[in-house]
Amino acid sequence: MKTEGGPPLNLNPEPHAASDRRRLRGGAPIQIGLLGCGTVGGGVLRLLAENSGYLAERAGVPLVVKRVVVRDLEKERVAALDRDLLTTNPEEVVDDPTIDVVVEVMGGETPARALIERAIDRGKGVVTANKLLLAAHGPALLARASARQVDLAFEGAVGGGIPIIRTLRDAFASDWVERVTAILNGTCNYILTRMRDTGASFDAALREAQTLGYAEADPSLDVDGHDAAHKLIVLAMLAFGAQVDSADVHTSGIRSIEEADHRYADRFGYTIKHLAIGRDLGDSIELRVHPTLIPKESVLANVSGVLNAVLLEGRAVGPSLVYGRGAGDLPTAVSVVSDILDVARSIASGVAGMQGRGMSIKPRAVRPLGEIVSRYYLRFAVEDRPGVMGRLAGALGDAGVSIEQIVQQGPTNSSSGAAPAPQPAVDVVLITHDAREGLVRNALDAIAREQFLREPVHLFRIEEP
Amino acid sequence: MKTEGGPPLNLNPEPHAASDRRRLRGGAPIQIGLLGCGTVGGGVLRLLAENSGYLAERAGVPLVVKRVVVRDLEKERVAALDRDLLTTNPEEVVDDPTIDVVVEVMGGETPARALIERAIDRGKGVVTANKLLLAAHGPALLARASARQVDLAFEGAVGGGIPIIRTLRDAFASDWVERVTAILNGTCNYILTRMRDTGASFDAALREAQTLGYAEADPSLDVDGHDAAHKLIVLAMLAFGAQVDSADVHTSGIRSIEEADHRYADRFGYTIKHLAIGRDLGDSIELRVHPTLIPKESVLANVSGVLNAVLLEGRAVGPSLVYGRGAGDLPTAVSVVSDILDVARSIASGVAGMQGRGMSIKPRAVRPLGEIVSRYYLRFAVEDRPGVMGRLAGALGDAGVSIEQIVQQGPTNSSSGAAPAPQPAVDVVLITHDAREGLVRNALDAIAREQFLREPVHLFRIEEP
Repeated sequence: MKTEGGPPLNLNPEPHAASDRRRLRGGAPIQIGLLGCGTVGGGVLRLLAENSGYLAERAGVPLVVKRVVVRDLEKERVAALDRDLLTTNPEEVVDDPTIDVVVEVMGGETPARALIERAIDRGKGVVTANKLLLAAHGPALLARASARQVDLAFEGAVGGGIPIIRTLRDAFASDWVERVTAILNGTCNYILTRMRDTGASFDAALREAQTLGYAEADPSLDVDGHDAAHKLIVLAMLAFGAQVDSADVHTSGIRSIEEADHRYADRFGYTIKHLAIGRDLGDSIELRVHPTLIPKESVLANVSGVLNAVLLEGRAVGPSLVYGRGAGDLPTAVSVVSDILDVARSIASGVAGMQGRGMSIKPRAVRPLGEIVSRYYLRFAVEDRPGVMGRLAGALGDAGVSIEQIVQQGPTNSSSGAAPAPQPAVDVVLITHDAREGLVRNALDAIAREQFLREPVHLFRIEEP
Repeated sequence: MKTEGGPPLNLNPEPHAASDRRRLRGGAPIQIGLLGCGTVGGGVLRLLAENSGYLAERAGVPLVVKRVVVRDLEKERVAALDRDLLTTNPEEVVDDPTIDVVVEVMGGETPARALIERAIDRGKGVVTANKLLLAAHGPALLARASARQVDLAFEGAVGGGIPIIRTLRDAFASDWVERVTAILNGTCNYILTRMRDTGASFDAALREAQTLGYAEADPSLDVDGHDAAHKLIVLAMLAFGAQVDSADVHTSGIRSIEEADHRYADRFGYTIKHLAIGRDLGDSIELRVHPTLIPKESVLANVSGVLNAVLLEGRAVGPSLVYGRGAGDLPTAVSVVSDILDVARSIASGVAGMQGRGMSIKPRAVRPLGEIVSRYYLRFAVEDRPGVMGRLAGALGDAGVSIEQIVQQGPTNSSSGAAPAPQPAVDVVLITHDAREGLVRNALDAIAREQFLREPVHLFRIEEP
């Protein structure tokens, strides 16, 4: 889209009561209050300033930043921003009757939730990028917004600059989403890409990601899968009309993946990706987040580094993928500003609160993990003696799980730091045909009782997106 | 999005004058007239019927098909459709004051253009999937629509089910698109994929595509690149705000690509794709459609078969890709119905004509091909005698074009059907560094005068999307 440099933020909007303005909207500007001014908030202010001319044309009225809530008035802020707009008191945003749109980019559940609810109750449009909050309270907040006839927009909450929320809400309006397969966490994808391409260990790849600023000092939210799970819950809300408790989403991270797993996956023609997977089974839905083997030549396998991607399968549209930078101040800020424009246009033309109309979001049954059907990659570190492979294959066969291929290789150089073995251990790696996970678990319980097992089994599911 | 089976099309809407309805919109249905009922039109009717309940909720009023224009009343039609709605007279749609939205899915320039203009002049919203028409008259039609305060929507015109128009219009509202690199023609992509994967000749792959219904009996519109050029012009309108004459878009197709080119490209680490490329250079834009070598590991290289993909590079968002089925009745129909929903909602809430507001589309200078800078793949079929490689390298050096790598291989088994040579010909293939195309052309003019050249040179540009 064409944009113009535009003047710095207009700092002297003439104030009037929100109610008046909603009736006789004339050319009166839409006034914006920002909750939070970190990297995303800074990017939002910068884009609003740089594109003010174009945005005013699109909205039909100017967009003006009225107030910005920060934690510390002294900290260095965005150049274009007048310090008079700063405050540490969020009530100066949510309670200001002249503010039309509240933009929440502070993150976290408290006090963000209460502030957003209060802004909604006061008839303001709300834009947020807070996936944690939406995963926990999205349906309630959307219901509250539609009851109050205001818009609640959150394109920035999932996939940074990727327009996945719009795509699900608008482009798929006349289709039925059957499956969502997504790379939603850039940190995990970066670490897995490095492990695959350089043979690095998880720890080494994580340290590298931290050095580059792709991973936090405490990386658990990312590498243990919780961040991806929050995003999947938000996608399921739109894709499947589902209200889901995060406890119902099977979530596992990437700490358990070893170099050896990447080598074996590659030999079998797969790449290991950390995927968020959702399926609509009609009577129930499937929601899970875990490391997954996918064919090397699949498009998702070629989404590398910190990039995110969401593959949707629509009944009518077929496969549809959106891909881009999943994080970073500017990509997310672009999504937030697009939302601000949408919400501002609706207010300016007196049709606020229509965006989510007709979307029904209700609790839906989530299929228990034991009942899902998948193919599995299983790696066993076992004693190097005759008959072991047979015992493994036998245990799976007894449980009703059939094997597609099996290889033995050793001695293993797994980096799991298992205690030094009396004799060298070997890896037995196998790929199953489609099987119900419950049956696989039964087989693994039996195998766990065997003496020849040197470490816990490595289990990864296989998908063909 | 959730959808319901819903009842078949409501065939007895109570009629009233469009004007009234626009004022006292109450719960009165939005009435739709369809121009054309081929595969896409049939898909649209089917989706409108299957999702009627959900669409009514989203629009706030029912969507009702009032009339469908067909060429032949006797031909077999969609099951859900009442034959009483059929007519062969388009005026019964564009002149019917009770019809709010006209959906043009007949294609071609005549009579589509006149009918759409007439519908706009009568204050109706228009939805079209007609890329040919938009490439030729898009800016004029959009100006006409905004002057009349009605919406003109065309998501279905580019990339079938891919929501690329929405993405450019809304998601990138606060960003600047610097580059567009796209696979926009499924026929070309299918043929090139088969040539690469099976070593088939162009003719064999084309016949296969025709057998499968992926290519027309007369494939020229697709394989010569014109279809992709039309789509690129539509994208440039939104991405660069550019009004472009198709004569200014360098367009070449895939007929000249031989098996040998795929083999050499592969050896150099590239895949040959038929790409539509657009760049915003600030003072001018670059628009071209041609076979292109791209690195094997790039995501676009892994978009196979009839799939389409559009890679956008935003100044703030960075790379962003949308991908999916570029053609076919249902994917395109999904996009058309999403547009119908958008246009209907705007009418129902009295804010028609706002969608394109603030978009400025004006003539922009297109950089002449001779001035673009690129890397090049050059293949020469030459006489197998000493000194030839030196003469080729020399001619390029004299013109100021530097070579990155050069290989000689022979005898060539090119399938170009060149006359049998007195002595075996060999292929000399080289990759240049970045060079201005004009300089490359100068070198090729000099080389063309050499006696040792057995066939015209094969030139393909190289991109790193």
